Amino acid sequence: MTENGARRGRPGYDQQGILEVAVAAFNEYGYDATSMGVLADRLGLSKSAIYHHFASKDEILERALDQALGSLEGVLDEPGASEGSAADRLDHVLRGAVHVLVDQLPYVTLLLRVRGNTEIERTALARRRAFDRRVMALVETAQAEGTLRTDIDGRIVERLLFGMINSIVEWYRPGGREDAARLADDVIAVALDGLRVPAAERGAVLGG
Amino acid sequence: MTENGARRGRPGYDQQGILEVAVAAFNEYGYDATSMGVLADRLGLSKSAIYHHFASKDEILERALDQALGSLEGVLDEPGASEGSAADRLDHVLRGAVHVLVDQLPYVTLLLRVRGNTEIERTALARRRAFDRRVMALVETAQAEGTLRTDIDGRIVERLLFGMINSIVEWYRPGGREDAARLADDVIAVALDGLRVPAAERGAVLGG
Repeated sequence: MTENGARRGRPGYDQQGILEVAVAAFNEYGYDATSMGVLADRLGLSKSAIYHHFASKDEILERALDQALGSLEGVLDEPGASEGSAADRLDHVLRGAVHVLVDQLPYVTLLLRVRGNTEIERTALARRRAFDRRVMALVETAQAEGTLRTDIDGRIVERLLFGMINSIVEWYRPGGREDAARLADDVIAVALDGLRVPAAERGAVLGG
Repeated sequence: MTENGARRGRPGYDQQGILEVAVAAFNEYGYDATSMGVLADRLGLSKSAIYHHFASKDEILERALDQALGSLEGVLDEPGASEGSAADRLDHVLRGAVHVLVDQLPYVTLLLRVRGNTEIERTALARRRAFDRRVMALVETAQAEGTLRTDIDGRIVERLLFGMINSIVEWYRPGGREDAARLADDVIAVALDGLRVPAAERGAVLGG
């Protein structure tokens, strides 16, 4: 009852609500520069009210990174990631990753800034690398089945694809002209189908 | 003669040599955290010997960013960027940008970390945006001439392409398996021609 008392007349943050405000602050000021006192001010809560939900600032970071990573890993566990040709499965995974990025923009932004300075960060980076390896394996399967070109190393393909996808956090703002589905179409158009109109089709485009 | 005296028996850094060591330090520790004293220690020079070449730490940053930006802008001024179809010119510019990134890796890395905290950084960002606009105009010209697909906004295309190219600084290490020319081929293969093997060509690949 003490916790409820402390929050009387203030926004009623649950754990997810606190997480959201904390992630925004981490992205704005940097994780190290964001103290529990700063978070308490932002939330209009006492520090002890935050400690009721999270044992430490590290635990908030851990939860935030887990949310981004869990969402990305979830894409690989969807039926679309294991049905059809490997190229179609890769198509599904890339689209899914764009959706996660847009839906969880602050969480993925935080994940992409992690440099491995603490044990929690290193664990997150290891999970991210495991995700990358699963995507790379999918690229290599698609190359082996003949649906993806084989003249580029699968690891380089994976890095270039996710370099492109991850860069979206640099400029994407919710409510802009592109929604997640449209942006996913764009990524697929660039990455899998290519931007160049084949010479044989150019007349039709010019005449269209 | 004083400057020469101060450097006796130490590596004989010229302006470019000092710049190189400074850029490496900025990338490692961050610009703000790298004092002129730290630079002097790294170089084995006195601070006054550095001031003989650069009026301030800001001037070192300005020169480093100018080198990266000048190299990128130089690609747009090459003959290949103004001859042939717009798609071929874009091909040239993307390859050129990959070469600049690989040849000037520390300088481009520094440029990509600039956030606009000072006047020098804001000037650099404005120059970078002007470069991006010239590439975007090239994309739109290629779309208008029918050599590039028109179903994606030119601005989004430019951002996705340079998101992919810029991400190379995250993992590229000189002397690795991929040289600049090979990496440029890979980027073109992904971006312009696409990874997916057209269905009509798959039999040949599977049988090959």
